Amino acid sequence: MIQPKILKGFRDSVPSQEIIRKQVMARLEHVFTLHGFVPIDTPVLEYTEVLLGKGGGETDKQIFHFADNGGRDVALRFDLTVPFARFMAAHLQEVSIPFKRFHIAKVWRGENPQRGRYREFFQCDFDIVGVDSASADLEILSMMEASLKSLGLDRFSIRVAHRGLFNAFLGHIGQQQHSVEILRTVDKLRKIGSDEVFSLLRETTGSEHAAASILEYIQADTSKGAAHTLDLLSALAGDESEHTSRMREIFGYLEKLGIASRFTIDPSITRGLDYYTGIVYETFLDDLPQIGSICSGGRYNDLASLYTKEHLPGVGSSIGLDRLLAALEELGNPLFTDASGSDVIIFNQDVASQDRYHLLANRLRGEGIRCDVYLTQKKLPAQFKYAELNGIPFGIIMSEEDLQAGTCTLRRLATREDIGNLTFESLLSHLKRNKTDC
Amino acid sequence: MIQPKILKGFRDSVPSQEIIRKQVMARLEHVFTLHGFVPIDTPVLEYTEVLLGKGGGETDKQIFHFADNGGRDVALRFDLTVPFARFMAAHLQEVSIPFKRFHIAKVWRGENPQRGRYREFFQCDFDIVGVDSASADLEILSMMEASLKSLGLDRFSIRVAHRGLFNAFLGHIGQQQHSVEILRTVDKLRKIGSDEVFSLLRETTGSEHAAASILEYIQADTSKGAAHTLDLLSALAGDESEHTSRMREIFGYLEKLGIASRFTIDPSITRGLDYYTGIVYETFLDDLPQIGSICSGGRYNDLASLYTKEHLPGVGSSIGLDRLLAALEELGNPLFTDASGSDVIIFNQDVASQDRYHLLANRLRGEGIRCDVYLTQKKLPAQFKYAELNGIPFGIIMSEEDLQAGTCTLRRLATREDIGNLTFESLLSHLKRNKTDC
Repeated sequence: MIQPKILKGFRDSVPSQEIIRKQVMARLEHVFTLHGFVPIDTPVLEYTEVLLGKGGGETDKQIFHFADNGGRDVALRFDLTVPFARFMAAHLQEVSIPFKRFHIAKVWRGENPQRGRYREFFQCDFDIVGVDSASADLEILSMMEASLKSLGLDRFSIRVAHRGLFNAFLGHIGQQQHSVEILRTVDKLRKIGSDEVFSLLRETTGSEHAAASILEYIQADTSKGAAHTLDLLSALAGDESEHTSRMREIFGYLEKLGIASRFTIDPSITRGLDYYTGIVYETFLDDLPQIGSICSGGRYNDLASLYTKEHLPGVGSSIGLDRLLAALEELGNPLFTDASGSDVIIFNQDVASQDRYHLLANRLRGEGIRCDVYLTQKKLPAQFKYAELNGIPFGIIMSEEDLQAGTCTLRRLATREDIGNLTFESLLSHLKRNKTDC
Repeated sequence: MIQPKILKGFRDSVPSQEIIRKQVMARLEHVFTLHGFVPIDTPVLEYTEVLLGKGGGETDKQIFHFADNGGRDVALRFDLTVPFARFMAAHLQEVSIPFKRFHIAKVWRGENPQRGRYREFFQCDFDIVGVDSASADLEILSMMEASLKSLGLDRFSIRVAHRGLFNAFLGHIGQQQHSVEILRTVDKLRKIGSDEVFSLLRETTGSEHAAASILEYIQADTSKGAAHTLDLLSALAGDESEHTSRMREIFGYLEKLGIASRFTIDPSITRGLDYYTGIVYETFLDDLPQIGSICSGGRYNDLASLYTKEHLPGVGSSIGLDRLLAALEELGNPLFTDASGSDVIIFNQDVASQDRYHLLANRLRGEGIRCDVYLTQKKLPAQFKYAELNGIPFGIIMSEEDLQAGTCTLRRLATREDIGNLTFESLLSHLKRNKTDC
């Protein structure tokens, strides 16, 4: 006998979890599709050299890589961005530019598993590549908002900053040469607080004045609306620029689309060391700020420079699917409370009636009702238990009387309340009225 | 610059392919869900020992396995059956029996890539575990039929045999001891023809008479319907048995469900060396018999004996998704001809109208219309080209006149035919009328 163990940092998804994950993914994909985004897929396994570029370093230790049977050095993808860059370089002649793609798939990292961190997890990325316009920036932001709303989320805020503007500000105060270190420090603000950030900045810049200026910028008063915040920031950065005007344009559109209240400018958002050059953003749940951003991204200058000379600017975002699912569960989201395997189950009591059970089930399925049939004649309590375990709200029983009349009895399983002698039409209308979405 | 190459036997899925694959998977999942089947997921990576059992041999050479950073011998799953068996043993206390699960996911095998064979490919499995009943057998068969119909397939036949009955026949003619070899030979009938099968059987059994008997069984006259075929087979096997009565029961139900015409008894179906003990089946397309079975499976005695003492009989089936997709394309299935990224695109001509484009797009999306917006002001021919590449059937143009009147112009892109000055309501009704399913 072999022990059915699984690897550390990996996990099975049992139906009660997988039904919800699929439902969340389906809703997100529906929103993406409504916005004209198209799906792609890439291999799970790639040449290690292609995934790591010249780099290595930190990522190298975390990556699952090995020599395959042909002696090639291959690796499991550790994100969806690098394969997307490789994909764009490989298919430049086939795809239409601007290219709007989404990709929801597993990635693997060998990091030490902690609470809520796994070695196998899902990423959900969407990007618009090949165009640098306020319309594209807007579309990503607006789609982020629509995606979260589609999951029944209402209390969230998307915080937006502009990396170009921040860099211009750093240039203006003569700190451009320390920008990498400064970005990394500012990104920790939420974690370590402003006092600690101030001392780190003073250390980095060697100037109390510069450190104070940077704190002033990242903690600028945002309470008077986007236009006012942008006035402050552009003054701190020396002057109006293409960056402030892009931000003004985007926030003007958000206003006209009627969704501006979800968005705030937050100049402390930097996305750390990443490759962003334009807008950057993170999304926080009002009721669970401590879990961090559930949807983040930004505009970058060049996606695939590692693989092609073709210049591919883009803007994109990534939803942390596992973190989002944990949040939805903690918030008691209806997706979690309503999840069930079927809308109704037909109980199986009479060996001679198997065909009637399946016929009725097929008729209900034809009407879009998810209908289970208990597949053997166990005692009813065992069948009720099965229904309960699967969260099935209704059961159909065919009593002697029903069998003669060609009707059936519908039982609401939670309350054991019976409605008897239903014709197919009234059965169907009962079930349709009570159908949940998942 | 790194060459954006991918591994031999692996491939990207570009949107025109991925849209269709997702659509096919969504339709299958919809059918499974209507039947009360629930999804599970398992890790891509498992302990090699857990996946291979004591075995090894043929599979060993084909498996992608390696030592991870912790020195564990790990492997990419090579099918979905072994992980399912391991899953059932691990979660026996959590899941409800009978357990009806589906799993559509990638698997990896290091075989030499040939036409239509890849090292990374999808499997689509569905099983009912924990019950041995005609109702369960029927449900799998009926769901296979419904699955293929949901893809618009009409001309196919599901061929069913019974391994228990065949074994009883082999016992009756005194050939039980050669059954492994005989099954393997019979499984080749379609490939090598009956003469060759006869000589191989004569060699195996050492008896011309036995070889002739076996040919008589596997080529029994099936032209007079299931009941008659079963009469013949049970006579050849010595007598009526639980196996023939199970088959009679199943075919009786198929008749009553009105789907019997899709099913035939074909005693030459054995599924080779597999672990089946009850019904076995394969599915052939009338118009593409040469591609082989697109959906196969059977009833087995014990799923998870490698990992648990718990006895888990089951019945299941597997759709070869890549083969099925290739077949659908070859048959000119509407899923392939109608695939497009969006229902309509709003062309972008006026820099001052960005908000109006996005507002209109959001209204259409709210009505379920997949609406793209061209995200920058390129010349119209470039925008038309983009629409064409993405197979988008309609475009929206806002002329000067439209902008003043608050209307828009809808263009059918294939014919360049314009319908102008449409209000939102008439625009919507045009688009809804012309919406395709994918």
